[in-house]
Amino acid sequence: MYSQLFKNVHKKTPIVHCITNYVTVNDVANIILASGASPIMADDIEEVSDITSISNSLVLNIGTLNTRTIESMIQAGKTSNELNHPVVLDPVGVGASRLRMEATLRLLEEVNFSVIKGNASEIKAILNKTKTSGGVDVSLEDIINDRNIDEYIQVAKEVSKANDAVVAITGPIDIVTNKDKTYIIRNGHKNMGKITGTGCMLAGIIGGFIGANPENILDSTAVAIAAMGLCGELANGKVVKEGLGNGSLRTYLIDYMSNLDETTLMGGIKIENR
Amino acid sequence: MYSQLFKNVHKKTPIVHCITNYVTVNDVANIILASGASPIMADDIEEVSDITSISNSLVLNIGTLNTRTIESMIQAGKTSNELNHPVVLDPVGVGASRLRMEATLRLLEEVNFSVIKGNASEIKAILNKTKTSGGVDVSLEDIINDRNIDEYIQVAKEVSKANDAVVAITGPIDIVTNKDKTYIIRNGHKNMGKITGTGCMLAGIIGGFIGANPENILDSTAVAIAAMGLCGELANGKVVKEGLGNGSLRTYLIDYMSNLDETTLMGGIKIENR
Amino acid sequence: MYSQLFKNVHKKTPIVHCITNYVTVNDVANIILASGASPIMADDIEEVSDITSISNSLVLNIGTLNTRTIESMIQAGKTSNELNHPVVLDPVGVGASRLRMEATLRLLEEVNFSVIKGNASEIKAILNKTKTSGGVDVSLEDIINDRNIDEYIQVAKEVSKANDAVVAITGPIDIVTNKDKTYIIRNGHKNMGKITGTGCMLAGIIGGFIGANPENILDSTAVAIAAMGLCGELANGKVVKEGLGNGSLRTYLIDYMSNLDETTLMGGIKIENR
Repeated sequence: MYSQLFKNVHKKTPIVHCITNYVTVNDVANIILASGASPIMADDIEEVSDITSISNSLVLNIGTLNTRTIESMIQAGKTSNELNHPVVLDPVGVGASRLRMEATLRLLEEVNFSVIKGNASEIKAILNKTKTSGGVDVSLEDIINDRNIDEYIQVAKEVSKANDAVVAITGPIDIVTNKDKTYIIRNGHKNMGKITGTGCMLAGIIGGFIGANPENILDSTAVAIAAMGLCGELANGKVVKEGLGNGSLRTYLIDYMSNLDETTLMGGIKIENR
Repeated sequence: MYSQLFKNVHKKTPIVHCITNYVTVNDVANIILASGASPIMADDIEEVSDITSISNSLVLNIGTLNTRTIESMIQAGKTSNELNHPVVLDPVGVGASRLRMEATLRLLEEVNFSVIKGNASEIKAILNKTKTSGGVDVSLEDIINDRNIDEYIQVAKEVSKANDAVVAITGPIDIVTNKDKTYIIRNGHKNMGKITGTGCMLAGIIGGFIGANPENILDSTAVAIAAMGLCGELANGKVVKEGLGNGSLRTYLIDYMSNLDETTLMGGIKIENR
Repeated sequence: MYSQLFKNVHKKTPIVHCITNYVTVNDVANIILASGASPIMADDIEEVSDITSISNSLVLNIGTLNTRTIESMIQAGKTSNELNHPVVLDPVGVGASRLRMEATLRLLEEVNFSVIKGNASEIKAILNKTKTSGGVDVSLEDIINDRNIDEYIQVAKEVSKANDAVVAITGPIDIVTNKDKTYIIRNGHKNMGKITGTGCMLAGIIGGFIGANPENILDSTAVAIAAMGLCGELANGKVVKEGLGNGSLRTYLIDYMSNLDETTLMGGIKIENR
């Protein structure tokens, strides 16, 4: 099944409309292309409905939101909902400012999301609807491990129920859940956190996978996360072997995504039913 | 002659003012530097006339346009026209939304462009002044080949006449034309379409070539397109040889542009009179 | 001492709030991460005070300023001043437009900067408060060498006194000064000027170093500049050895920054008391 979901991205080349931050937007576009989908970035309120209409999915990322683009996100989200296009929310640093929290709560109120993806601090902040401390990176106390994982699964399930969405918490171990089923994913490498935008890139890839497979949001999200983690492992292995560093890790991550085939995917992904 | 046009970029280091999208802007700046010119990005209406005045050419790219930057583009374009600086239009995804089409028509009405460069879908959309389907990538039915090329040459010529500009249609085969003369270019590799921004980068490079050679817009545009395609071929060859992927292709493309010399250029470009 | 200042960045992982241009923002974020600090980009006036409050330092870069972000910079700067967080100003291309000059003068009036960093043309423009010619790159007549260095030290000292800030002039030889002490730094390679954003990246790194060492702004700035220059030398050496170009130089620069250790740092930096 994962194999088929992956193949569909390359076969259907879904168009992924992204309203995303200007820090990592280039990497998001490049990794969406590398994964077999086609990105389009557009954030003016006068055109987001047109753009969303010709797309297969929508990704909303609040990384460098501003008062202008919040309205565009709402507009694009509503149009996507009307057209039954799947929508991803990446609430980057939602706990870092009142503006991000309020925008996120408004988005959750006015738009139906198919997938909400964040690190543990972000998903907890949504659950608690509170501004936390810390920046855009996960807090040290929020690193998921085998001892605390049940607590985070509970968090993910509650956010999933409250928003009727697949919820993904990313970290050393990733959690993907809807109201019925939970997956645990053990791909990825901690060095991926040393380059900016791996989370944003992942949201873009999820957009491509669910755009190509709108009938199976849960499994598409899981395999997208596992594929990204696997490419990160492979890229990091090559970086270490060649004595390189973070700059090369970013390049190789996109290289491995563009060269990923079914055999490598199925041999490398570690998705468990929980 | 092509050799001289190329050398002039390195010799004169023209300043290229770009009002361009935030997705690919970094690659545009880096490849302009790699080609021997000097980029400056500025889009606030309060400063675009100042910036354009100290520049040698202007590149307007509507990739992530918004209502604020459209006005800045008009203003910069008019100032460039007054100063007789050459101006390039890159109508990214012009058929994808009403906003893009209206902004493009207004730009064509209020600014005199030296070069209009787009893929076949974009140039056709300008000719037909209609919103098409599809995103920012060329439609499958609009891939130029040896059988349909005469039709696209006709499209290019009509857009050229209507706007008194050099028109370039990029694709597997590129077309460059003004009212008197037409070139066909057979450089480039299809994998260049698998990284975001090769079209935007090309517009930036054209800006440098025509900024250094304002007296010969047609040939400068042709050799800029051929040089970019040649670097893409070389970069792709290296990527394939080393078993790498899209991330490395982007890096090597800029590498080859920065190392390009006259001998490699003249040995590799394939520009035919038509 | 330099060794300790460097180690503190990795140990404390300071959060660096950047309001910076969209051309080079991704490289700025990646090199801040590579240097051991944690970047956060946020420019909406509704959230900059929140973001600055959870950060350890603030970097203001006017590279693609606009009337919206100028107000955000002022707001963030004032909040940082209230909280005693160090603030860096990178007046990119300040002489290129009236808007940039007026914004810079207003920033210098309303915000207390810890560090003002620019190339010789930019720092001279601030001293003379005049719009100059030329773009964002240093003018040819403003290249610092051993014959004219005393003149530029004088410029730096005057700007330092007028603004009660550490002033850094970057170039083939770098100058760092406050009212009491002056350093000369002889690291770096001229090819760093052939990739966009090395200056912006340096401002980000300075933000991390002074965020981790707020009690020693002068020495932190000096070692940050030397570390960046050293990584540029190493990256350029590898590029030349492998026959690569500008694209790889950017990648390797970030690689070397992420792999930099105390031994390499202390063996390679060339900081002289003047």
